[in-house]
Amino acid sequence: MRILGIDPGTATTGYGVLNWDGSEIYSLHKFGWIETDKMLEANVRLNSIYRQLMALLAELKPDTMVMEKIFFFSNAKTIIRVSQAQGVILLAAEHSNIPVCELSPSEVKKIVTGNGRAKKPEMQTIIKKIFKLKTPDKKKTHFDDAADALAIALCYIKKNNKEPIS
Amino acid sequence: MRILGIDPGTATTGYGVLNWDGSEIYSLHKFGWIETDKMLEANVRLNSIYRQLMALLAELKPDTMVMEKIFFFSNAKTIIRVSQAQGVILLAAEHSNIPVCELSPSEVKKIVTGNGRAKKPEMQTIIKKIFKLKTPDKKKTHFDDAADALAIALCYIKKNNKEPIS
Repeated sequence: MRILGIDPGTATTGYGVLNWDGSEIYSLHKFGWIETDKMLEANVRLNSIYRQLMALLAELKPDTMVMEKIFFFSNAKTIIRVSQAQGVILLAAEHSNIPVCELSPSEVKKIVTGNGRAKKPEMQTIIKKIFKLKTPDKKKTHFDDAADALAIALCYIKKNNKEPIS
Repeated sequence: MRILGIDPGTATTGYGVLNWDGSEIYSLHKFGWIETDKMLEANVRLNSIYRQLMALLAELKPDTMVMEKIFFFSNAKTIIRVSQAQGVILLAAEHSNIPVCELSPSEVKKIVTGNGRAKKPEMQTIIKKIFKLKTPDKKKTHFDDAADALAIALCYIKKNNKEPIS
């Protein structure tokens, strides 16, 4: 089974893909990010996210796409832009016949770090340790977006592996 | 020239189409709304908006699509859902090669009613008077969404007709 975690954004959408045997065993398949040009208009950027994600879904063939639910941002402009990106991401999943699951940020933090109020860098450090990833010198924030996406995919796996295995 | 105004929403997206000669003369071409089933999941509803709008754009062939910019909602859940709908609406316009213009709510209110802080029902009453529309007994709120969309299209026309005609 293949789980795709998505950390949505207009400038950078992080993604992380885990292969999972349905119980205890999972492994890193791929991670990365989709970028859009800040100089372009909103509709062109949204189309760029849609097209890049459609290509990624066709390549990776995930069984489930998992995305973080947004609840609150201090900046209204940010929440609008991230939600618009989410809209086209959900559409791309629907156009690729991939089921979507949404998880809350506190749920992801709690399952990955043990603390629902953990800070993002704390969670990213744990993810990098689990998957033996080294923060690159360049594109550090993009790399962190990909680590967040891996955390979301990992949360889905841990959450759906609560039942005792028969 | 044909101007399509859009009032976005996940449940109901109002639309209003005006034909315009580029200066003083404009007329109502069509108005209505796109509905989605509240029982369906977010991704299915977003796809329904996308598909219905793509069909509408192919039928109406507008030269410009005008949409209200969102700034603030008291409810974070509403702003997220409306922004997700906006995302797929912007994508449908991009996929149909239709340029998009975004106007602020206060700008629409000011140009249509003369007061940037006017209440929506006040604006809707003016729109219904201009275009000789009668509020139906059924689907009143949907009708109001279409009136809002006509106000947005009308604002675009009035705003772009400020220059003296040579």
